[in-house]
Amino acid sequence: MIPLAEIQKAATVLDGKIIRTPLVYSPTFSKMCRSRVYLKLENLQETGSFKLRGATYKIQSSLGQLGKRGVVAASAGNHAQGVALAAGRAGVPATIVMPGWSSITKQEATRGYGGQVFIHGQSLEECISRAQELAAEGRTFIHPFDDLSIIAGQGTIALEILEDLAETDVIVASIGGGGLISGIACGAKAIRPQTRIIGVQTASCPSAYMSIRKNERIHVDAGKSIADGIAVKQLGVLNYTIIRENIDSVVLVQEDDICRAMVMLLERKKLLAEGAGAAPVAALLSGVLALPSDSRVVLVISGGNVDSPLVDRIIRRDLFRDGRIMRFSVCLEDDPGSLARLLSLVADSRANILHIFHDRSGKDLPIYLSRVELELETRGPDHVKSIAFALKEAGYDIFIRSHRAFGNG
Amino acid sequence: MIPLAEIQKAATVLDGKIIRTPLVYSPTFSKMCRSRVYLKLENLQETGSFKLRGATYKIQSSLGQLGKRGVVAASAGNHAQGVALAAGRAGVPATIVMPGWSSITKQEATRGYGGQVFIHGQSLEECISRAQELAAEGRTFIHPFDDLSIIAGQGTIALEILEDLAETDVIVASIGGGGLISGIACGAKAIRPQTRIIGVQTASCPSAYMSIRKNERIHVDAGKSIADGIAVKQLGVLNYTIIRENIDSVVLVQEDDICRAMVMLLERKKLLAEGAGAAPVAALLSGVLALPSDSRVVLVISGGNVDSPLVDRIIRRDLFRDGRIMRFSVCLEDDPGSLARLLSLVADSRANILHIFHDRSGKDLPIYLSRVELELETRGPDHVKSIAFALKEAGYDIFIRSHRAFGNG
Repeated sequence: MIPLAEIQKAATVLDGKIIRTPLVYSPTFSKMCRSRVYLKLENLQETGSFKLRGATYKIQSSLGQLGKRGVVAASAGNHAQGVALAAGRAGVPATIVMPGWSSITKQEATRGYGGQVFIHGQSLEECISRAQELAAEGRTFIHPFDDLSIIAGQGTIALEILEDLAETDVIVASIGGGGLISGIACGAKAIRPQTRIIGVQTASCPSAYMSIRKNERIHVDAGKSIADGIAVKQLGVLNYTIIRENIDSVVLVQEDDICRAMVMLLERKKLLAEGAGAAPVAALLSGVLALPSDSRVVLVISGGNVDSPLVDRIIRRDLFRDGRIMRFSVCLEDDPGSLARLLSLVADSRANILHIFHDRSGKDLPIYLSRVELELETRGPDHVKSIAFALKEAGYDIFIRSHRAFGNG
Repeated sequence: MIPLAEIQKAATVLDGKIIRTPLVYSPTFSKMCRSRVYLKLENLQETGSFKLRGATYKIQSSLGQLGKRGVVAASAGNHAQGVALAAGRAGVPATIVMPGWSSITKQEATRGYGGQVFIHGQSLEECISRAQELAAEGRTFIHPFDDLSIIAGQGTIALEILEDLAETDVIVASIGGGGLISGIACGAKAIRPQTRIIGVQTASCPSAYMSIRKNERIHVDAGKSIADGIAVKQLGVLNYTIIRENIDSVVLVQEDDICRAMVMLLERKKLLAEGAGAAPVAALLSGVLALPSDSRVVLVISGGNVDSPLVDRIIRRDLFRDGRIMRFSVCLEDDPGSLARLLSLVADSRANILHIFHDRSGKDLPIYLSRVELELETRGPDHVKSIAFALKEAGYDIFIRSHRAFGNG
């Protein structure tokens, strides 16, 4: 347990160095689950995630004791940016080891904040070993979560939440290595002991969930997750101790629920959240939280760093699922004008054509037929039905693709 | 000019009925233009836009004087949702006339807030006539902007801004019919007369810009705009008077700048803004604002209601422009395995394949060749170059498509 005084000290140090992020009420989510739901928007934090808090406090409170050559960290994402910015502001050199697969966007953001980036190896473990070698050359290693100052820094989120909503009943936050939730638990329980703290993990990487069940800090095998920020295979030592003693429960969410939560946050709340940041919303919407009705619930949206191609893919997948993208194939007589006639029917239905694939020489096609595959942007399931009806009425024998059957959309 | 007391009265009425939206500092935008830039996040307002403020104040302050059959409004978007929710909360029936082309999402949102939706005609003018007929049957018509209570309601935004940042130097907001900016101007100038108020319009629909230049309230021809929320061909009468007397300047932005601003808000600030909401950011980034350095500038992000297919299209276009989508065609010998060999080279380069088009029977192709067109997700311009180099080294004669040359992406 970290003393409240330490977290309050962190808040004083962070004042003016981070964004005091807003806590906003969500009527939409409140209605959905008969509670009063608030979102703590750490995705609006500078660098796009809460990691800046811990990194800033760690560096600011260690000034004078840091290695001659500054600090070093290993990270593929948010911790990299947090350390780079925090160090840059303190006038301390920062070396960040990032794996080869880390996104160019995140590498560039880290460089943009003044960090010196080393690309090394393919796993985060390789990066950490390399970072520790660099630490031995006179740099201070900044752990992403298993560190008292880091935890105290993240704990300032709890102070802000309780300042804005003194009667908070429940705080829900995601768990990777455990830095965020252990800080929040220490802060919130010290100020308002009856606050329930609920952790969320993806079922693809249930390290905290399994550790609590087995009553030991275990290492799990992790599948690929959209919530890469919390795909950490083992809790930190300090984090595990705090979580075991102070967290009321840990729940699991499915990958599909996380995607759905990301889309809901974007469509309904106009907020971009990364998978780890949307996990508490996924927990709320999938019903695993079991909240007493009318309780005041704060969901911590921990970060918003998602690469655009992924945003694009999540949106397209959701559009398809909601019937707002329609995919079908149809065989046409291979004569001049047959495709034009089909497209003019589609135009009459006011659907937008996204892609056309026209195959005149498929092996399984009779010589006088060609096959056309179309992807349309529609106004929803009813529109899809009316387009299908119009095409069938006009004599076309169409084959509609169901969700996920087509390509890589 | 609307008296400050009226706007303060509106603020009292709105208290607890709307979200007091956050004002957040933006280090990114501040650095870009050497000012201190803050964003007033009306996209986080319930219904996704500021329109709820004016509609709520209008309805609440007219209770008892409303038509027996409630209220009626004409709108394709934000005003529809604002009136429907405000009326529903006041227990007043709301009829909303929406044009045939209005998005299904917005129609459904309006119904979801309790509004009775009539789909009528293709133009907003047709909707307004129909709404006025419905008003004659015992409903009170709620104008979207040319109304003192509506303006006073929107003016509460200025009070909140100056509460949060008393020393605001400049407020920038978009102008459609003029409701938002006239309210803000009345509120801000009354409290802090030296606050500069700058209006932003799309060059596709410069109604306020031209009206000020010509010194009369003129009607402009409007092109299609991504900022549909401000594509209003003529200012309101009250709005024109207030704007002429209280706005310091009106600037124009290009459609491309608006798209770019939307992507920047999403990528850098994790916020979804609609075109009208992103227009002040577009003005900042395109350099038309001419701000004294170190001034404190508030950009009003007025709304975030963008349909997902449009978000998708904007992101893809931007990815393409940034070299994160690569499109090229290449001719292959039409023998077994030639496509597999090409794709395995692409796989080696670690680019993701988004689409393949394989044409074996193009008219312009020799009989022994087929043509393949590929769309790849890359890590940026350097990655594009290295892929192109690898393919050329391997003997492929590739033709790279430049921005916008391909399909409808």
